[in-house]
Amino acid sequence: MAESLLENTILIERRMEVEDALHSVIESSMNGPYSHAMGLAREILLAGGKRIRPILTLLAYDLVGGKDRSDVIDFAVATELIHTATLIHDDIYDGAKLRRGVQTLHEKHGLDHAIIGGDFLFVMGFGIGGRYDEQIVRIMADTCAAIASGELKQLQHVSDLSTTPEDYYEIVRGKTAGPFSSACECAAIIAGASESEIESMREFGMELGIAFQLVDDLLDLTGDERMGKPRGTDVHEGKMTLPIIHALTLLHGDARRKLADVLGEFHDERWDELEELLESGDSFGYCNILIHNHLDRALGHLHRFPESEVRDVLESITRQVMTRND
Amino acid sequence: MAESLLENTILIERRMEVEDALHSVIESSMNGPYSHAMGLAREILLAGGKRIRPILTLLAYDLVGGKDRSDVIDFAVATELIHTATLIHDDIYDGAKLRRGVQTLHEKHGLDHAIIGGDFLFVMGFGIGGRYDEQIVRIMADTCAAIASGELKQLQHVSDLSTTPEDYYEIVRGKTAGPFSSACECAAIIAGASESEIESMREFGMELGIAFQLVDDLLDLTGDERMGKPRGTDVHEGKMTLPIIHALTLLHGDARRKLADVLGEFHDERWDELEELLESGDSFGYCNILIHNHLDRALGHLHRFPESEVRDVLESITRQVMTRND
Repeated sequence: MAESLLENTILIERRMEVEDALHSVIESSMNGPYSHAMGLAREILLAGGKRIRPILTLLAYDLVGGKDRSDVIDFAVATELIHTATLIHDDIYDGAKLRRGVQTLHEKHGLDHAIIGGDFLFVMGFGIGGRYDEQIVRIMADTCAAIASGELKQLQHVSDLSTTPEDYYEIVRGKTAGPFSSACECAAIIAGASESEIESMREFGMELGIAFQLVDDLLDLTGDERMGKPRGTDVHEGKMTLPIIHALTLLHGDARRKLADVLGEFHDERWDELEELLESGDSFGYCNILIHNHLDRALGHLHRFPESEVRDVLESITRQVMTRND
Repeated sequence: MAESLLENTILIERRMEVEDALHSVIESSMNGPYSHAMGLAREILLAGGKRIRPILTLLAYDLVGGKDRSDVIDFAVATELIHTATLIHDDIYDGAKLRRGVQTLHEKHGLDHAIIGGDFLFVMGFGIGGRYDEQIVRIMADTCAAIASGELKQLQHVSDLSTTPEDYYEIVRGKTAGPFSSACECAAIIAGASESEIESMREFGMELGIAFQLVDDLLDLTGDERMGKPRGTDVHEGKMTLPIIHALTLLHGDARRKLADVLGEFHDERWDELEELLESGDSFGYCNILIHNHLDRALGHLHRFPESEVRDVLESITRQVMTRND
């Protein structure tokens, strides 16, 4: 993030609140009967991470006029526990060796420990969520079911050159944007916001989350490693990202055949070919336009709320997604 | 189960209620956005299974005077969804090829699908649980955290000849007896039972669950395959079951060394040696006494409730565990 945001007092404070709450959940669990399980999960939980979901939760709560952040902090922690659970499990079948700069659980402790460690964080998250109304638990469960669904759909479409933008959006809404959206939505519900405010927050989170994923897709191709993963991870894994889907749809004849060939037998010497093909259909430009559209819509949802310091911070976070890529 | 129980009308009715409710959850999920994920999970869910946890839930609810089983049926279904989630994940790292007579998810669809399919059932279970009070969701989460903890402890003690009976009991309380106990406890809470009735149900479930696991351990060694797994699975996997822990504790000198050797390099030609060693310390007899003790205590908890048809059924189930092994 740019300096302006890194130095923003509200953001720093919220991040500290998240870290404190997370540490205290971990600590109390380390002193209880599940210390072994938490000992495993803690390695990944405390290795860093941007804490986007819990920070968005706190900011959304404030934006809609929530009066006491201690009412929402448990939910915020739950979003991070569940997010980390999904990362631990994803890393297993992606065969990832590092996560947040430390060894993945399955690399360090084996498949069994990683499966159980992820399960443990899921149930910790839901246990904490249980203090809230049925509606919140339902949304949490729906969000997780949609993550699972999105991941299955993504697996189904690995190396599938006929994947459509609609397929792509369904995957992204499930696995990336859904958790952003439900974090903001639940924060508004917990704050006692009106139906239309809740809807604005849900939509804000969804648009922001989609833009995040689109930027992630672009960075995978353009080679900016600020996201912390090496260039081309998605391409090597056969993940159908939007620039590639766009190019496959747009190109014809020899160019289309060449693109299929590059994707089918991709290796690092073929970067130039791939880039040229993507540029010939202006697939990067297409994605940039979509990113701007989603972020504009996200800003539109924010602007339904009166001007405030918190709104400024959320706006800055939103614009940051945009400029990260410009 | 013996004919008397198989023909018991109440038990047949409760089992039908469980199957109906499970089918309707599956069906409505198959018509929703998560049909792919449920399609995976359904294969294992509908392949059978004894449905012990949900059936105990319904019976416990009736026993304490619950008035409307439709209040508890969702919880009962959740216990089965979560149980099946743990089976799917266990089977991955146990490398099991069959579950309930059908191919395990990871065998049929791969590691990724099995991890996601299990996660999906976990969150389905918690989503359904969310309609209940915070207390119920907390107990569900605690139960699952204790399962994870018990499984980790079991992994820690694989082939560990210094495993104590206390270690064993901690593992069993976590992974087997805990879910029985919390199913009965929550049923009583949902029925609005008194504190002491709730405690009786919790203890009943715990004692029954421990006895179940002890019988399972014995059957692994004595070769009765009514449990549906081949003789010696635990021994081959290095699982420290109570008869073995007992013999390791009791035997000395040459006999102890020989037992360590048999366990360290076990193969099917060594059955006679192993049996002889276990019999020389009367380890089977020791376990049988413990099983009777736990079941007697389970019956004691039932007898705090007035005589009724439902109590008779629960008693029969309890005695059945005993005779299964006599």
